[in-house]
Amino acid sequence: MTVFLNGNYVDGSAAVIPVTDRGFIFGDGVYEVFRSVDGRLFEGERHQERLEEGLAALRIAMPEAAHGGALREIAARLLEENGHSRGHATVYVQITRGAAPRAHQFPADDVRPTMFVTTSALNSLEAVRSAGAVVITQPDVRWYRCNIKTIQLLPNVLAKQAAIESGGFEALFIRNGMVTEGTHSNLFAVLEGEVRTHPDNNLILPGVTRSVVLELAAELGFPVREEAITEEEIGQVDELFLTGTTTDVLPIAQVDGRHVGTGSPGPVAGQLYEALYRRMHEGRD
Amino acid sequence: MTVFLNGNYVDGSAAVIPVTDRGFIFGDGVYEVFRSVDGRLFEGERHQERLEEGLAALRIAMPEAAHGGALREIAARLLEENGHSRGHATVYVQITRGAAPRAHQFPADDVRPTMFVTTSALNSLEAVRSAGAVVITQPDVRWYRCNIKTIQLLPNVLAKQAAIESGGFEALFIRNGMVTEGTHSNLFAVLEGEVRTHPDNNLILPGVTRSVVLELAAELGFPVREEAITEEEIGQVDELFLTGTTTDVLPIAQVDGRHVGTGSPGPVAGQLYEALYRRMHEGRD
Repeated sequence: MTVFLNGNYVDGSAAVIPVTDRGFIFGDGVYEVFRSVDGRLFEGERHQERLEEGLAALRIAMPEAAHGGALREIAARLLEENGHSRGHATVYVQITRGAAPRAHQFPADDVRPTMFVTTSALNSLEAVRSAGAVVITQPDVRWYRCNIKTIQLLPNVLAKQAAIESGGFEALFIRNGMVTEGTHSNLFAVLEGEVRTHPDNNLILPGVTRSVVLELAAELGFPVREEAITEEEIGQVDELFLTGTTTDVLPIAQVDGRHVGTGSPGPVAGQLYEALYRRMHEGRD
Repeated sequence: MTVFLNGNYVDGSAAVIPVTDRGFIFGDGVYEVFRSVDGRLFEGERHQERLEEGLAALRIAMPEAAHGGALREIAARLLEENGHSRGHATVYVQITRGAAPRAHQFPADDVRPTMFVTTSALNSLEAVRSAGAVVITQPDVRWYRCNIKTIQLLPNVLAKQAAIESGGFEALFIRNGMVTEGTHSNLFAVLEGEVRTHPDNNLILPGVTRSVVLELAAELGFPVREEAITEEEIGQVDELFLTGTTTDVLPIAQVDGRHVGTGSPGPVAGQLYEALYRRMHEGRD
């Protein structure tokens, strides 16, 4: 497995960083996960834009290799060398503020950001997709900048672990009685004929698939409203589904042991998944 | 400079971790900073206890080397080899969930935690202490598990950076109108004859120096109350001061450009600093 680290293509086993890297010491960095379909980055520009926005929000200097054209070349080479240029794969990019003596404030200007890129084959979720995902709810204890795709992911780790231990697939975060999103996915509901999802603000990650699904829902003629559902409304929805770069559109069958709607994947999620799949295979990026 | 990494004593320049370390990828780890005075760990047992509580809270298996006796030996060797066994120094310990393929949930049981220990000479804060620290306020956007000393420190990084850019030393976090603490320190106030500090709950780090200062304040006969001051009360206090393992007791002279009390370091902070200094030099640990 070849990975890219700070300008070099190296074997994954040789990809090491100093312990003083601010990613390791402070969680001081951002990441991005691109979806590759037959070697093409699906919605690559939106992912690129989010990566750049994250770097700007944290004021981490953008490495040359992180610019769109350069990053595409890195991704293409890794996908090819790693045998991921056919079918579905992901390209993981992480950029931190670099290695420096430990002090909270930003280091000297000559400290160069650390950039790491790797690829993986996409895990198939077809079994989960056909049965519907089993999920739990968890308190949303995260910080108030969830819109930045940072590596501050410990609350997501703990909530996902709770989901796995409960026999489920994902956890939905609840903040002040509202469902915000999943630990690595956004949440949609179908309620009273509307497709609903949490508004794009500081409490959720602005998912690329979320945006695409909002567009597809409108194209398919579903009324769409960006308003979170409440914890109570979970019991009233016709459908719930997750969206994300690795989850696509994934129907939810159960929340905290209770059926969602009929308890089987619903028609809106099905149509949106098909429309997403079509768009992905049109080669649009 | 010698550091300890996963059982080995290595030169700091050779201390590297895999890019797949969950500390780097997810911020999935805890840290601790011990204070060393002439090679002895001041209040070492309380720091050790907090480290163990953090590991337990995150369910990270405690490395053999992190047990009290073993960690003291590592600290002693590093302090000695690095020329930090005389005077004031710090021992930094970080433990993460280890290196594993990226997936939010906990990795397989055979993944061993990463443990890193290093020492530093203590930066002198005497100039700041004699003039009083200049601080700013910042919104407390952190998560709701601030009581665990995790490496989820990006909000602290951003607030500290804002303080430095404003010409100040530290930022005080404000949550819902209450002052919680600093980015790497707890906050105390003297108001209407009482010594006040935020209660020990999930919104602050349970500082070791905070606990010691509460004890010292009681010993000195000051009425003490663990109740946060409000943002408005900042304008009414007689004194404000920071406490921490590297800050000791540090008086605050200005908040957001306004004088605190007389604008000079106050007598309560002075007495508490002296009492702390005495205790530190009694060799009590």
